[in-house]
Amino acid sequence: MTAIKSLSSQDEFVGYYLLKELEVKQTNSTPAKDYFDIVLCDSSGQLPAKYWDVSPTDKETFFPMGLVKVQGLVQTYREKLQIKITRMRKTTPEDGVVLTDFIRSAPISPADLLAAIKQTVESITDRDIHKIVSYCVKKVEDKLSHYPAAKTYHHAYFAGLAYHIARMLELGEFVCKQRPFLNPDLIKAGIVLHDIAKPEEMIAQMGIVSDYSVQGKLIGHISMASNWITEAALVEGIDLQSERVLALQHLVLSHHNLGEWGSPVQPQTAEAVALHHIDALDAKLQMVEDALQTTPEHEEWTPMIRGLENKAIYRMKW
Amino acid sequence: MTAIKSLSSQDEFVGYYLLKELEVKQTNSTPAKDYFDIVLCDSSGQLPAKYWDVSPTDKETFFPMGLVKVQGLVQTYREKLQIKITRMRKTTPEDGVVLTDFIRSAPISPADLLAAIKQTVESITDRDIHKIVSYCVKKVEDKLSHYPAAKTYHHAYFAGLAYHIARMLELGEFVCKQRPFLNPDLIKAGIVLHDIAKPEEMIAQMGIVSDYSVQGKLIGHISMASNWITEAALVEGIDLQSERVLALQHLVLSHHNLGEWGSPVQPQTAEAVALHHIDALDAKLQMVEDALQTTPEHEEWTPMIRGLENKAIYRMKW
Amino acid sequence: MTAIKSLSSQDEFVGYYLLKELEVKQTNSTPAKDYFDIVLCDSSGQLPAKYWDVSPTDKETFFPMGLVKVQGLVQTYREKLQIKITRMRKTTPEDGVVLTDFIRSAPISPADLLAAIKQTVESITDRDIHKIVSYCVKKVEDKLSHYPAAKTYHHAYFAGLAYHIARMLELGEFVCKQRPFLNPDLIKAGIVLHDIAKPEEMIAQMGIVSDYSVQGKLIGHISMASNWITEAALVEGIDLQSERVLALQHLVLSHHNLGEWGSPVQPQTAEAVALHHIDALDAKLQMVEDALQTTPEHEEWTPMIRGLENKAIYRMKW
Amino acid sequence: MTAIKSLSSQDEFVGYYLLKELEVKQTNSTPAKDYFDIVLCDSSGQLPAKYWDVSPTDKETFFPMGLVKVQGLVQTYREKLQIKITRMRKTTPEDGVVLTDFIRSAPISPADLLAAIKQTVESITDRDIHKIVSYCVKKVEDKLSHYPAAKTYHHAYFAGLAYHIARMLELGEFVCKQRPFLNPDLIKAGIVLHDIAKPEEMIAQMGIVSDYSVQGKLIGHISMASNWITEAALVEGIDLQSERVLALQHLVLSHHNLGEWGSPVQPQTAEAVALHHIDALDAKLQMVEDALQTTPEHEEWTPMIRGLENKAIYRMKW
Amino acid sequence: MTAIKSLSSQDEFVGYYLLKELEVKQTNSTPAKDYFDIVLCDSSGQLPAKYWDVSPTDKETFFPMGLVKVQGLVQTYREKLQIKITRMRKTTPEDGVVLTDFIRSAPISPADLLAAIKQTVESITDRDIHKIVSYCVKKVEDKLSHYPAAKTYHHAYFAGLAYHIARMLELGEFVCKQRPFLNPDLIKAGIVLHDIAKPEEMIAQMGIVSDYSVQGKLIGHISMASNWITEAALVEGIDLQSERVLALQHLVLSHHNLGEWGSPVQPQTAEAVALHHIDALDAKLQMVEDALQTTPEHEEWTPMIRGLENKAIYRMKW
Amino acid sequence: MTAIKSLSSQDEFVGYYLLKELEVKQTNSTPAKDYFDIVLCDSSGQLPAKYWDVSPTDKETFFPMGLVKVQGLVQTYREKLQIKITRMRKTTPEDGVVLTDFIRSAPISPADLLAAIKQTVESITDRDIHKIVSYCVKKVEDKLSHYPAAKTYHHAYFAGLAYHIARMLELGEFVCKQRPFLNPDLIKAGIVLHDIAKPEEMIAQMGIVSDYSVQGKLIGHISMASNWITEAALVEGIDLQSERVLALQHLVLSHHNLGEWGSPVQPQTAEAVALHHIDALDAKLQMVEDALQTTPEHEEWTPMIRGLENKAIYRMKW
Repeated sequence: MTAIKSLSSQDEFVGYYLLKELEVKQTNSTPAKDYFDIVLCDSSGQLPAKYWDVSPTDKETFFPMGLVKVQGLVQTYREKLQIKITRMRKTTPEDGVVLTDFIRSAPISPADLLAAIKQTVESITDRDIHKIVSYCVKKVEDKLSHYPAAKTYHHAYFAGLAYHIARMLELGEFVCKQRPFLNPDLIKAGIVLHDIAKPEEMIAQMGIVSDYSVQGKLIGHISMASNWITEAALVEGIDLQSERVLALQHLVLSHHNLGEWGSPVQPQTAEAVALHHIDALDAKLQMVEDALQTTPEHEEWTPMIRGLENKAIYRMKW
Repeated sequence: MTAIKSLSSQDEFVGYYLLKELEVKQTNSTPAKDYFDIVLCDSSGQLPAKYWDVSPTDKETFFPMGLVKVQGLVQTYREKLQIKITRMRKTTPEDGVVLTDFIRSAPISPADLLAAIKQTVESITDRDIHKIVSYCVKKVEDKLSHYPAAKTYHHAYFAGLAYHIARMLELGEFVCKQRPFLNPDLIKAGIVLHDIAKPEEMIAQMGIVSDYSVQGKLIGHISMASNWITEAALVEGIDLQSERVLALQHLVLSHHNLGEWGSPVQPQTAEAVALHHIDALDAKLQMVEDALQTTPEHEEWTPMIRGLENKAIYRMKW
Repeated sequence: MTAIKSLSSQDEFVGYYLLKELEVKQTNSTPAKDYFDIVLCDSSGQLPAKYWDVSPTDKETFFPMGLVKVQGLVQTYREKLQIKITRMRKTTPEDGVVLTDFIRSAPISPADLLAAIKQTVESITDRDIHKIVSYCVKKVEDKLSHYPAAKTYHHAYFAGLAYHIARMLELGEFVCKQRPFLNPDLIKAGIVLHDIAKPEEMIAQMGIVSDYSVQGKLIGHISMASNWITEAALVEGIDLQSERVLALQHLVLSHHNLGEWGSPVQPQTAEAVALHHIDALDAKLQMVEDALQTTPEHEEWTPMIRGLENKAIYRMKW
Repeated sequence: MTAIKSLSSQDEFVGYYLLKELEVKQTNSTPAKDYFDIVLCDSSGQLPAKYWDVSPTDKETFFPMGLVKVQGLVQTYREKLQIKITRMRKTTPEDGVVLTDFIRSAPISPADLLAAIKQTVESITDRDIHKIVSYCVKKVEDKLSHYPAAKTYHHAYFAGLAYHIARMLELGEFVCKQRPFLNPDLIKAGIVLHDIAKPEEMIAQMGIVSDYSVQGKLIGHISMASNWITEAALVEGIDLQSERVLALQHLVLSHHNLGEWGSPVQPQTAEAVALHHIDALDAKLQMVEDALQTTPEHEEWTPMIRGLENKAIYRMKW
Repeated sequence: MTAIKSLSSQDEFVGYYLLKELEVKQTNSTPAKDYFDIVLCDSSGQLPAKYWDVSPTDKETFFPMGLVKVQGLVQTYREKLQIKITRMRKTTPEDGVVLTDFIRSAPISPADLLAAIKQTVESITDRDIHKIVSYCVKKVEDKLSHYPAAKTYHHAYFAGLAYHIARMLELGEFVCKQRPFLNPDLIKAGIVLHDIAKPEEMIAQMGIVSDYSVQGKLIGHISMASNWITEAALVEGIDLQSERVLALQHLVLSHHNLGEWGSPVQPQTAEAVALHHIDALDAKLQMVEDALQTTPEHEEWTPMIRGLENKAIYRMKW
Repeated sequence: MTAIKSLSSQDEFVGYYLLKELEVKQTNSTPAKDYFDIVLCDSSGQLPAKYWDVSPTDKETFFPMGLVKVQGLVQTYREKLQIKITRMRKTTPEDGVVLTDFIRSAPISPADLLAAIKQTVESITDRDIHKIVSYCVKKVEDKLSHYPAAKTYHHAYFAGLAYHIARMLELGEFVCKQRPFLNPDLIKAGIVLHDIAKPEEMIAQMGIVSDYSVQGKLIGHISMASNWITEAALVEGIDLQSERVLALQHLVLSHHNLGEWGSPVQPQTAEAVALHHIDALDAKLQMVEDALQTTPEHEEWTPMIRGLENKAIYRMKW
């Protein structure tokens, strides 16, 4: 079976893939004919595909997010690769393939990521901070195990958010050792909480964000998380005016650093400054790593990456 | 008695004034002598003042925010007017002057403004919106009657915030009549809530803001108000996921329109668009009105106004 | 007959529509065939359409801005609706349809709008201001009755400009009552004159702007209006150096507020500040109203609106 | 006599100078004493100066823009040079000094500059363009012979504007030869008209701008010149819609290139593009030349120059 | 033979052209057919073209940058002209056409341009500057004779870079005469060196840039030229700390004027300020000249020009 | 002895301090008297000071960067603390104080820092990279042991640059472990080289930058380091076109990330992205740490920090 990432123009191939997107369309010919406009993917990448001369049965057989066995030909259309599907059938149990094989995932299992995050939460020594962080994690625990961290920018895959948090916690631990004036409880809490409302901000399935929720658009994950901290404090009986609540809300509200990047206030505590830069370092390096991994190895340059000033990354030859 | 606003260079005068600011300093001479660095004000304006050769008794007699009878001389220092105080004593009950005569105030009494606001709140027909707005107003009711709306930008005087809200409510009522697709409950609620956390964001006395509070700097009045809505909904038993809560938080969060002006999200409901522009129209026109009123009438130009692209306003001659 | 706005994918329909745009094109097939690339519209909205296999007779029959009876099928092409026209004929007098039924118009008749504007002009008490405003209105009186206010941003329909002016005049009257320091003559004059050169800046037919004029591109409506005031003063024998002329030119020149929005000077009179914000409030709310009205009612979100920071507007469910 | 530019700290000197600015102030001592706060200048530069213990006679003797003989001492105050005047008297006819010796002037005489400009105007071959340019030049002919080109940015001295125009005309002639597709009449007209309204925008005496005029602030020299072209065409009987009028107004309106630099439209004719860059080249190089000339020769760096990205200019050592 | 620039919709024509781009693609039909997606050009301009029903022989016959005789038909596709090629063959020696006839070139021969540049280099009187400039010119001498100055912005044709340098040298000579304080050696050196590394920054053939080189992307022509100066000084035994080296590197590094335009430092010598503005004047006027020349004469407006604030240029009618 | 940082208004004190700055000035009194305008510092901070009635002997005794024993009084001047020196004498060997006790230094000794950096350089496995890095370090080895990293922004003290490099190397080592796709040689080289030219860009003594060098202003440390890499490669016989040279120059040139922050190219290799964010994280956290350490402990807020969006840092109370 051929990985999507390794397909080249004019390749003929057979393999199992996921119908990430599928739409019925009609040709301009007379009479018009139905065809499927498809995005085909596996864990290595994705490509647009066409399936011509769709029959009524086909329309009742194939749906988005279904697994299929495909025979196809790779063509070039507007300087981009596109698959022409010549044969296609749904997979059967005998094929022995499962959905999660076909989506991009964090390199560590969701269960391990969630366990690592929860262990960190348990290590928070301040009672009030511990309660608030636990409350917020509980609100999204289900989604936290599999949600991506973003629609396209970075960690945009299954369990990407938990992976982002887990790696930031490693980095945060190192920075706290290097700079003892930082409060480790606040660094841990800030890392866990900073994107905690993203699962409610975005609508995602199998690590793929289809849209932002109404709440996500009208309030945004930054203010949602701030509201959750208020809710947690009220429910847990913690004084809303306490410096703990203040410190946590400031961490969440300021972590995008600038107003034009969505933060209503700028970092004004040591831990808030640290949080923003730990977040940036992890997110930007992950964008690089993801781009290099999904770019065929013989190519010198990755595609342009919006989150990196729209620059492509060059792969040194040695 | 001479109004501050009408004093000119070389004027000698006697009158009652407020010691808005007073600091003990020392001259560079040997031996150093104590003097008072003062800001003297009445309801028409303010001027810097010096009181030289301060005695130990003086230092125990005069304090900031005290009322005094002053005999002085107006001088020019670095192209600005400055008062040299030649005699000064504290006022006595016999003088018949009271503090509120000496500070700039909204042209309508605080009691009337508060009554108008409360009446509007009562006219909100939606039960949940009414509860949330009432809850938030109650949190700051005391301060709402006398707080300024800003440190320097606009409505920076006694009861300026309530005055700003009351005028916006008039404008909002007109706009709702002109455009029936707007929801009057949301317009009213948005106007009352948009700056409702300002009394906790700033530290003010007699309409004069001395500083921002720690909460004000680390969270800001926009996010504070959003948190209060969460608190109100929880306490009043209103579903946090309801569209009412969502709509109110969106109004508050988006009312500065752009990220660089402090809004984490941009207006995305009809009422949020209206709220931003009603706020802008009222605030900008008040800046103009205040500048014209505090500029001596024979001067063509007001001072430069930071909130109006740092432009001065010209007074037409007819 | 079915309104354009209520058509859904796969609908078959018959009705009268306007050929807003029509271009003859050729297919890539061998031999190439002619087809019509069409924009079909009625007063509720517009959709792209294709009419395949065009005959020589068709090419002599159908032209842009003509009314037609159409039988068609709604398809989806690149995620947007597109009509496939299966039958089409020109309308006849018997059909009883007229052009103005098919274009978007202001909700008030052009005659009434023009009358309201002229009545306001007559109410200007200052002789010189009255003369200048009258002169400028006369220059574009014909076009003022039916021109749109913009190509796409706002009030982009038949009589949109007059409607914008009329609504601003209502708002201006309210603001003058609320703030008596404003000069009502200048507010009225500023509102009538601020976009008065737009009919010469744009080339429009039936409320639809096809392009900007050469003058529009090289001078722009702001400077054109300023020049017209000069012309009016010269013709009417008013001193070019008088404060009236100065005040009117300043109103026009500064009404976009910032250099990057096209204003060579920023508002520096009370009335100029008011004019900019009255204009903004009316234009932005009209964008919202127009977007909500032309979006099918079952859809939560309007399309993105360029003039509103490129945000879509959410329709609350209650 | 010592040139201002060559004075160093601790120098004692005697010489004739101009009292460019003079203000009576009072010391903080008790009793307060009068002193003069002065700006002393000659054609090489200027320095702040103090004249202590001013007598009533002094106050009736010395005024701004008067010539004086001064004995003084150079001191350092806040890291800048400042003159302490020990003796001062008004000049008499016997001293043989005249005002124009003491102000910075263009290196070519005003009469020669004006003659060169007028000769260029006469060489314009197109009748209508010639009439309009002549009309506008005539409006400010008196001031054109001696006005500066700006308050501080560039050519800020006696006849600076005429000098700027004359040098640009030389450059324009060269560019027209190098690029024959440019219309020389329009290049000449654009150069003469682009800043033609500056003498009415600014209030200046002896090449020193004290302020902007009310017209200058509310309309600005760009729109004023555009209005003058309208006026000229009307008076001279030239069709306001003609391409000549259009071309001239476009040149003037667009010559600052960007909205944020004050141009309501951007250059959209070949000549308008040329005009902007000829203007920039001449103005920027003059800023450099002026800064180098007024900086003492032993200093490596000029002061920072606002019009050059606030950078200082380095003088190479060879 | 018909020039590309003069083709209109529905024209049938025969002529010799260059296959500037050629790609084999496949139709969506079943079975898919091969076709050529072509860009056809001559020295007057270029147009997209399609050649349908490509045979295996065709695929071995036609390649990019080959000369062909074409019979075709001009069609309109998405509001742009597109050629449908009906017949096509490779040219033979008998046709008497050569490649350079079909590409856009500077109006002066490469040999003459190079000679003019070299002559200027020889006229540099300072020994060290002369050595460094000669060294750098020698590095790219081959490419300097034919490289374009940019991918799309300006002088984007055969020998465009040498043409840009030669014209700037003329302008530089004039400016040095007008302003004797400028050092002519530095002006000459700055003009020759400012874009000297462009031939290594871009990959071009026949004046057409296909891409940027890896060095071009990772270092950029500005820093490359700075490094070359270091290299030249080392090889030629010139002190790296000398003011000559410093002056040349500063000229190169600062010539884009601002950080956001790619210059790590801003102009801080007289010659650096001059260089930037001479470069701007020449480049912008060439953009205008090129746009006017390649726009059909009956059209009032050129296409929009990215380097001119994305504005089109209007051609006056007289 | 009292640390500068712990002095409060009205304190009288005696102690040893460094005369960081000293300038002779004159009072405005008649006759004028000399006084010293001083900046007094120790390792905890600095304060302005005045020493009145300076004698001729004093002027020959006290100089900048000299150690003194001072008796003084703390006063408040323009809301800031200022010392009035009542007695002062130079220190003698008997006092047992040395210069380095009085300046702010990195918390690790210069020798240890330099050893750590050199050890890292030795650990670079790639021969060419090792040679280039060694060459550049050798160029500034003397200054590297004691130079600050910046004039004011961060690490602005004795050995601040070496400290910045050493801490970044720790962080870089951690990040390389966390993300094995990064090339450790390039990370090490990038960290050592990124600011390697700063000692030549700035003029500093005892960790205090007095100015930028001419080279620093005209070329800047980024381009200087790029040139040094060229020089190193040439001298060491490494191919200038090799990917090693390219990679190192790209790291240095891109490490400020954006053009407006001084980088002529943006990061386009994995290691360049990492370098920028490791630099940012270390520099920003050091700004916070330095501000907290030099702010008296009873104060909630540090002064505003320019490098942190001009925000002050709040010190949590627990």
